[in-house]
Amino acid sequence: MAVSEITEKLLAAKKHKGVTFSDLEQILGRDEVWIAAVIYRQASASYEEAKKLIEALGLSSEYIEALTDYPVKGSLEPVIPTDPLIYRFYEIMQVYGMPLKSVIHEKFGDGIMSAIDFTLDVDKIEDPNGDRVKVTMNGKFLPYKKW
Amino acid sequence: MAVSEITEKLLAAKKHKGVTFSDLEQILGRDEVWIAAVIYRQASASYEEAKKLIEALGLSSEYIEALTDYPVKGSLEPVIPTDPLIYRFYEIMQVYGMPLKSVIHEKFGDGIMSAIDFTLDVDKIEDPNGDRVKVTMNGKFLPYKKW
Amino acid sequence: MAVSEITEKLLAAKKHKGVTFSDLEQILGRDEVWIAAVIYRQASASYEEAKKLIEALGLSSEYIEALTDYPVKGSLEPVIPTDPLIYRFYEIMQVYGMPLKSVIHEKFGDGIMSAIDFTLDVDKIEDPNGDRVKVTMNGKFLPYKKW
Amino acid sequence: MAVSEITEKLLAAKKHKGVTFSDLEQILGRDEVWIAAVIYRQASASYEEAKKLIEALGLSSEYIEALTDYPVKGSLEPVIPTDPLIYRFYEIMQVYGMPLKSVIHEKFGDGIMSAIDFTLDVDKIEDPNGDRVKVTMNGKFLPYKKW
Amino acid sequence: MAVSEITEKLLAAKKHKGVTFSDLEQILGRDEVWIAAVIYRQASASYEEAKKLIEALGLSSEYIEALTDYPVKGSLEPVIPTDPLIYRFYEIMQVYGMPLKSVIHEKFGDGIMSAIDFTLDVDKIEDPNGDRVKVTMNGKFLPYKKW
Amino acid sequence: MAVSEITEKLLAAKKHKGVTFSDLEQILGRDEVWIAAVIYRQASASYEEAKKLIEALGLSSEYIEALTDYPVKGSLEPVIPTDPLIYRFYEIMQVYGMPLKSVIHEKFGDGIMSAIDFTLDVDKIEDPNGDRVKVTMNGKFLPYKKW
Amino acid sequence: MAVSEITEKLLAAKKHKGVTFSDLEQILGRDEVWIAAVIYRQASASYEEAKKLIEALGLSSEYIEALTDYPVKGSLEPVIPTDPLIYRFYEIMQVYGMPLKSVIHEKFGDGIMSAIDFTLDVDKIEDPNGDRVKVTMNGKFLPYKKW
Amino acid sequence: MAVSEITEKLLAAKKHKGVTFSDLEQILGRDEVWIAAVIYRQASASYEEAKKLIEALGLSSEYIEALTDYPVKGSLEPVIPTDPLIYRFYEIMQVYGMPLKSVIHEKFGDGIMSAIDFTLDVDKIEDPNGDRVKVTMNGKFLPYKKW
Amino acid sequence: MAVSEITEKLLAAKKHKGVTFSDLEQILGRDEVWIAAVIYRQASASYEEAKKLIEALGLSSEYIEALTDYPVKGSLEPVIPTDPLIYRFYEIMQVYGMPLKSVIHEKFGDGIMSAIDFTLDVDKIEDPNGDRVKVTMNGKFLPYKKW
Amino acid sequence: MAVSEITEKLLAAKKHKGVTFSDLEQILGRDEVWIAAVIYRQASASYEEAKKLIEALGLSSEYIEALTDYPVKGSLEPVIPTDPLIYRFYEIMQVYGMPLKSVIHEKFGDGIMSAIDFTLDVDKIEDPNGDRVKVTMNGKFLPYKKW
Repeated sequence: MAVSEITEKLLAAKKHKGVTFSDLEQILGRDEVWIAAVIYRQASASYEEAKKLIEALGLSSEYIEALTDYPVKGSLEPVIPTDPLIYRFYEIMQVYGMPLKSVIHEKFGDGIMSAIDFTLDVDKIEDPNGDRVKVTMNGKFLPYKKW
Repeated sequence: MAVSEITEKLLAAKKHKGVTFSDLEQILGRDEVWIAAVIYRQASASYEEAKKLIEALGLSSEYIEALTDYPVKGSLEPVIPTDPLIYRFYEIMQVYGMPLKSVIHEKFGDGIMSAIDFTLDVDKIEDPNGDRVKVTMNGKFLPYKKW
Repeated sequence: MAVSEITEKLLAAKKHKGVTFSDLEQILGRDEVWIAAVIYRQASASYEEAKKLIEALGLSSEYIEALTDYPVKGSLEPVIPTDPLIYRFYEIMQVYGMPLKSVIHEKFGDGIMSAIDFTLDVDKIEDPNGDRVKVTMNGKFLPYKKW
Repeated sequence: MAVSEITEKLLAAKKHKGVTFSDLEQILGRDEVWIAAVIYRQASASYEEAKKLIEALGLSSEYIEALTDYPVKGSLEPVIPTDPLIYRFYEIMQVYGMPLKSVIHEKFGDGIMSAIDFTLDVDKIEDPNGDRVKVTMNGKFLPYKKW
Repeated sequence: MAVSEITEKLLAAKKHKGVTFSDLEQILGRDEVWIAAVIYRQASASYEEAKKLIEALGLSSEYIEALTDYPVKGSLEPVIPTDPLIYRFYEIMQVYGMPLKSVIHEKFGDGIMSAIDFTLDVDKIEDPNGDRVKVTMNGKFLPYKKW
Repeated sequence: MAVSEITEKLLAAKKHKGVTFSDLEQILGRDEVWIAAVIYRQASASYEEAKKLIEALGLSSEYIEALTDYPVKGSLEPVIPTDPLIYRFYEIMQVYGMPLKSVIHEKFGDGIMSAIDFTLDVDKIEDPNGDRVKVTMNGKFLPYKKW
Repeated sequence: MAVSEITEKLLAAKKHKGVTFSDLEQILGRDEVWIAAVIYRQASASYEEAKKLIEALGLSSEYIEALTDYPVKGSLEPVIPTDPLIYRFYEIMQVYGMPLKSVIHEKFGDGIMSAIDFTLDVDKIEDPNGDRVKVTMNGKFLPYKKW
Repeated sequence: MAVSEITEKLLAAKKHKGVTFSDLEQILGRDEVWIAAVIYRQASASYEEAKKLIEALGLSSEYIEALTDYPVKGSLEPVIPTDPLIYRFYEIMQVYGMPLKSVIHEKFGDGIMSAIDFTLDVDKIEDPNGDRVKVTMNGKFLPYKKW
Repeated sequence: MAVSEITEKLLAAKKHKGVTFSDLEQILGRDEVWIAAVIYRQASASYEEAKKLIEALGLSSEYIEALTDYPVKGSLEPVIPTDPLIYRFYEIMQVYGMPLKSVIHEKFGDGIMSAIDFTLDVDKIEDPNGDRVKVTMNGKFLPYKKW
Repeated sequence: MAVSEITEKLLAAKKHKGVTFSDLEQILGRDEVWIAAVIYRQASASYEEAKKLIEALGLSSEYIEALTDYPVKGSLEPVIPTDPLIYRFYEIMQVYGMPLKSVIHEKFGDGIMSAIDFTLDVDKIEDPNGDRVKVTMNGKFLPYKKW
């Protein structure tokens, strides 16, 4: 994946400032995953959100406007990513894709879970046998329209 | 995706019997997504689980043993699936893969969310603006071992 | 593309009966493109729609239930189709994809045109210089949710 | 997608000037989608059209000639684009490709919808349940020649 | 390439009868390449053409209707064919694609050579240094429409 | 396709000088398609041909030697090109590849049309119904050697 | 690789008869590699050669005609073969492709080694440190034609 | 293929000096193909070999050490090369891969021809009907070990 | 992966007999991984080994000869396997491929670890924190030959 | 594979200093393969490990922080690597993937060998018939969780 120059700048500033995504969540009033998506240029911020983000990272305002652009999204290379953390989500789709499809159709009928009217959260579940990562996806069900 | 013959048989029996995944959840004491994964031959059942499943579907016991086999998992074709419901999970990985990676690393350090020591749930959230699909993934965090 | 057996049966019956998609549009009260999508197992019919369709094609009722199933959608092979009529839609996406993206974002903000809450019509525009094909896509704009 | 340098310059000037595609439609007397295609170097302008466009964007005339070149068209990467807005057009082709083929052949015979003698329009349909994107494709039907 | 069953039947009959494509050219009043395209299900015949072809091959009339269908075209596998004779046409596109594009644009402006309003001929040029294959493509120039 | 630097220089000079490929055909005594292939670094010129070409384009002699090199040929990206003019040649191979193979084998026996001992011409056929592009390929037939 | 039915029949007969490729070389007066290519349907035999081959394998004459057909050649799957013996030839092309190109061009000028006017031999070189496989390719040099 | 910077420097010096691979063969006491492989960074030289090579090309000693590195080998792009000279070796593998496998197994048993303990020679065979390229591969047979 | 018919038969017999790979190791005097490779048709047995294997599985002798054939090896589909257990070996190659290359070259010089003169063992290491899988690869180092 | 700039710097320093991976193993108290993985940016070091590494290589402390980052892992290009040393690991997965799967499942049940809780060692086994490379993988067995 070729991370864009602005992403590199923002991540460097974030590291230098010692600001966590969780801190940014407090400052912007937005979820940390969404904020990370803005930084990786997968989501577009409003002017106010961009301003708060830039200020929190101690950067000059020249980056604000760019963060409000509508990015070309999806940027993993190769098309089946090799990074083990990201690949596991591909594997989940491969292994559980059809079971998910069956269960969702049974509960909702023909349609899909939206990936646009959609939120994504990451939680850390402490566990003496090893902490657990909880990823919660919440998307509007979109029924297929007939016409 | 080429669904195996046993999957087709089980799904036909399930439809004929009018049994839902939710009913099977009650009968087996396992989550409906996991049961669907057994039916799609992505997970292996114990003898007892296979027996209960077969009985619930009104099938003869000849299928029990096959469901305890360790399947070759992952079976979507083409490698980037075209079915819109399943594709959305690929899209989520494309768009939110790097943001997820950053947030998980910040919370946990270097490592991954396991897709093996892992559970997956689907819930229906009723909403007057359109019901929502909630997908919850819960995987053990596996830190990279150094040696 | 491997057309499923039921599709072949329905198309053969349609040809034998001499029924056009336009006729089916009258009988079902649904658009001909949507009906073709049901026949190609890309859309799911209600029981009543399936019944009318089967009767119009002079087939026995054994096919009704299958047409109400939620199909695995998308079935062109190879991933970049070679059939010239279908390829042109790939070419339109290649050539006009970014211009469309820019214009839609400017008019609507960040989001997409839904391909689920979506209709698709084909009209024949008679023209002395050669008739024209008019394809109208109409999809709900889905703005990206922030969270 | 690697956007060419000239495209970046034109888009930056357009943003700086605060000119919309709709404004450019007025100024050039060409549709906004076609103008966006010129800017993304997917279509070639005449000298006069290029001149008007450059002037509207407040740029020097050095770019005029380049916009009259015949570009190498199609530039999305990877071959199945990951951007959700653009991907939906790929999905429409996957899901509705064969139904479209059937309906078009029934109405017109063997041949294709031209993607060259072709226009493409985007309209915003206001709707209280959510605005809708209307995309209209209009291409000459080209019957297969026999020889 | 998976040749369809009807193609195999027609080719077997043609071999058994000892009829050449050149003979068929005489009988149908169509070019031999186009007739071969009908047999390989890449082109659709009229009822009369199909009837003449079937009779020339000594087959029963059951095949006539199938030859008038509008086929799904393009059927080489893999996407870059390995057969040396066919690959050479891919190689010609690779090596001479850009030069051809430049020369055609210079002669005609922005547009393409149609592959639909198109004829294709093969001639044998006898030559003492080794006979030569002459392939002549003749397609209508389609200028890009502006709108 | 990444056009090499020398190609860009030669095309810019050609444009600046207002020299057509047809003019170059007169000057070099070689066909315009072959000359375009030299410019796109798909063919190698002799010293004399390179010298004439460079002089006709008003460039200094520093480029002469490079044009006599034996280039790495074939340079379209992606492997199935997206440019509509070039893609049509891929489409012709897909649709007419097997028919061509059959007709050539019938006329010549087992072997191929050479793409090396090969010429390629483009002609403009004026036609009141729309001008036509005539592409003539002429390659030596190479019979498979047995040993 | 999907070996065709006739190949399987011929190989089974060859095994059953205990005839080696070397024996067939004596009987047909053709090289064993070429004979293996006929059996794998990569080369076409004359009627006499096919007859001798069929008789040597103790098969009925029904297979003779098929072996004189002009096969669709090249049949390895996937496109980069996984069989270690065959893969090594791909590796040789990857590692030594450019060096070979340089040396051949230096010796012969611009052109290629024909793979059609071409012979291929395999010899066993006995060696106390381990026997060696000697593969000799001998192809006519084809210089690029200028026109 | 992206040729590395050092390769470009060495090839330019070789051209400027007018030294052939054959000359280098004399100077280094190594085969010209192996020397070309060193230059293309597909093989590693000893310090002495690198020194002789650099001196023969009239370059400063700064390049010596780099030529003794163990390169990342194989560098053709795309994975099925488009250059006609190099592609022919891919074609030979496609067409003759299985016949070669059969003949080698019959002569040697289960195993492979090594591409590491391996030599590769190119000879020019003068022939009044056209000179021929002779490529000789000589690799140790490696039998599969059982354990 | 399409498992061949003989593999299915052998695995079914093994299951029915209740024989483990470890049992087969005792009976054949060969490692269990190698025996599994014979069953999956990735390795060829001697007549005696095949006989012992067939008898241990209680099958008739008709399968013996087939197990002595030299199989076409490598059979995972798609080319990057989706089964999580097998994928991890792909991931190890992706993540540790270059580090392994560096360490091996430093220890041995330029060359490779043979995958032919090679053994592969699997051991179970009991561990109170979770048992561990130990995979040991042992391949002859093959230095690159110079010539 | 595009090696990152920091990797190139570290490798150059290592070469210049004449420090082996084995030396670094002594200095850091970590295995040489893991240290190579840190250098190739496939593993993340602690601050102390990074400091020791940088000092051993005689570099300034500016690189320390970068080595503690969580890298995007997996970086081989193309997806099936062409370097012969690395490819052999792909080949081992292709040939022995299914046998390994069977043996591991039989010993451990359904689950995988972790590539995260995992160590990898390389040893040189001296052998008069040619030294051998021993690669030992040791990963925790992760049983599939049911839920």
